[in-house]
Amino acid sequence: MTVRTIEVRERVMARNDELAAGVRARLAEHGVVALNLMSSPGSGKTTLLERTLAVLGEPLDIAVVTGDCQTQNDADRLAAHTARLVQAVVTGGACHLDALQLSDALDHIDLGKTRLIIVENVGNLVCPASWDLGEKSRVILFAVTEGEDKPLKYPKMFEKADWVVITKTDLLPHVPFDVERAVRYCLQINPRLQFIHISAMTGHGMNAWFDFLRQSIRPLAGV
Amino acid sequence: MTVRTIEVRERVMARNDELAAGVRARLAEHGVVALNLMSSPGSGKTTLLERTLAVLGEPLDIAVVTGDCQTQNDADRLAAHTARLVQAVVTGGACHLDALQLSDALDHIDLGKTRLIIVENVGNLVCPASWDLGEKSRVILFAVTEGEDKPLKYPKMFEKADWVVITKTDLLPHVPFDVERAVRYCLQINPRLQFIHISAMTGHGMNAWFDFLRQSIRPLAGV
Repeated sequence: MTVRTIEVRERVMARNDELAAGVRARLAEHGVVALNLMSSPGSGKTTLLERTLAVLGEPLDIAVVTGDCQTQNDADRLAAHTARLVQAVVTGGACHLDALQLSDALDHIDLGKTRLIIVENVGNLVCPASWDLGEKSRVILFAVTEGEDKPLKYPKMFEKADWVVITKTDLLPHVPFDVERAVRYCLQINPRLQFIHISAMTGHGMNAWFDFLRQSIRPLAGV
Repeated sequence: MTVRTIEVRERVMARNDELAAGVRARLAEHGVVALNLMSSPGSGKTTLLERTLAVLGEPLDIAVVTGDCQTQNDADRLAAHTARLVQAVVTGGACHLDALQLSDALDHIDLGKTRLIIVENVGNLVCPASWDLGEKSRVILFAVTEGEDKPLKYPKMFEKADWVVITKTDLLPHVPFDVERAVRYCLQINPRLQFIHISAMTGHGMNAWFDFLRQSIRPLAGV
């Protein structure tokens, strides 16, 4: 039984990797950069995107693709704050986005008028790690309300990521969270990780996040 | 491809349900109650269990089974606070516990000297919902640092649960979390849900949690 499961899974993953390569090629052709935003449920992905769209939606020509198990709540929240396109993918209970879903979502996005696509993955620190979507970079949101040892407990997610955004820093006075230890654990799993510390509530650190987004599209946009 | 995946998945799930029925029968035979504790990563499962073992570990003959993707950090944290058995299940990256893993864990627990087994599932609001472990009740931890709409976004988890423990209530003054709305969303998904509000940090509400645990074993223990 186990062996059969693994065989099928490997075939499914191989097909996903093919589709992700197709997404990557299609994005490159149009000079569009995609970021894959991943985290636990409730780490602040949607709030961060609300603030981001309000400030950089137009200047960076951002489109957002949100993945949700059953609702399009996040997409509705985001659409209320922006004229930019927000494309909802309802996974029907599945625990991650896959490259086919992103590929389908791209059909609804005018890539000629888009420079940055931010994909808000399903809130889950396990499964999305295994699914390449064709993104340029993977960004994990890591809230200070979680335990510092998340990188050790969900290593695959951190191994495959490029950036870690420490969120909800306004709550640091109220929670037993040691930022230095959390960063050390992240680097123990993946020494190449880079960090941004933000509070979307107070605005602290948001400029560093905005700079990261501008930087992400710079090589392609030639700015 | 999709059809094949579903077929295999259904076969795997059917086998899991058989194994869960076996676990349930084995626990009933020994008069042991199992609770399946589920939540997002970082909702406070391990901290709650630390406090629980300290107070009720001996009086209720509690054993704990912790599921973790890669580490046994949680098991180590818990073992530091109790002489009761803490059995670690490292899932090797899998995103949930299954009935076979719990069945194997039971082989290491003296069921004759145990009345309550608390299973700390992998931190994940999606996948564990589909896997019956043979538990009596399912308990979701829902931290006030998460969004109120978690029940709408992860409905399967809440549909199949019996109790919701609202955690980290000490942070309510610092987060934009509307408890009434969160409860309303929970009941919208599952009107049978019951609620406990706690802060493991301040101790607020812990007596209600302890009463719930005592009550859980009462019918079997004849107390």
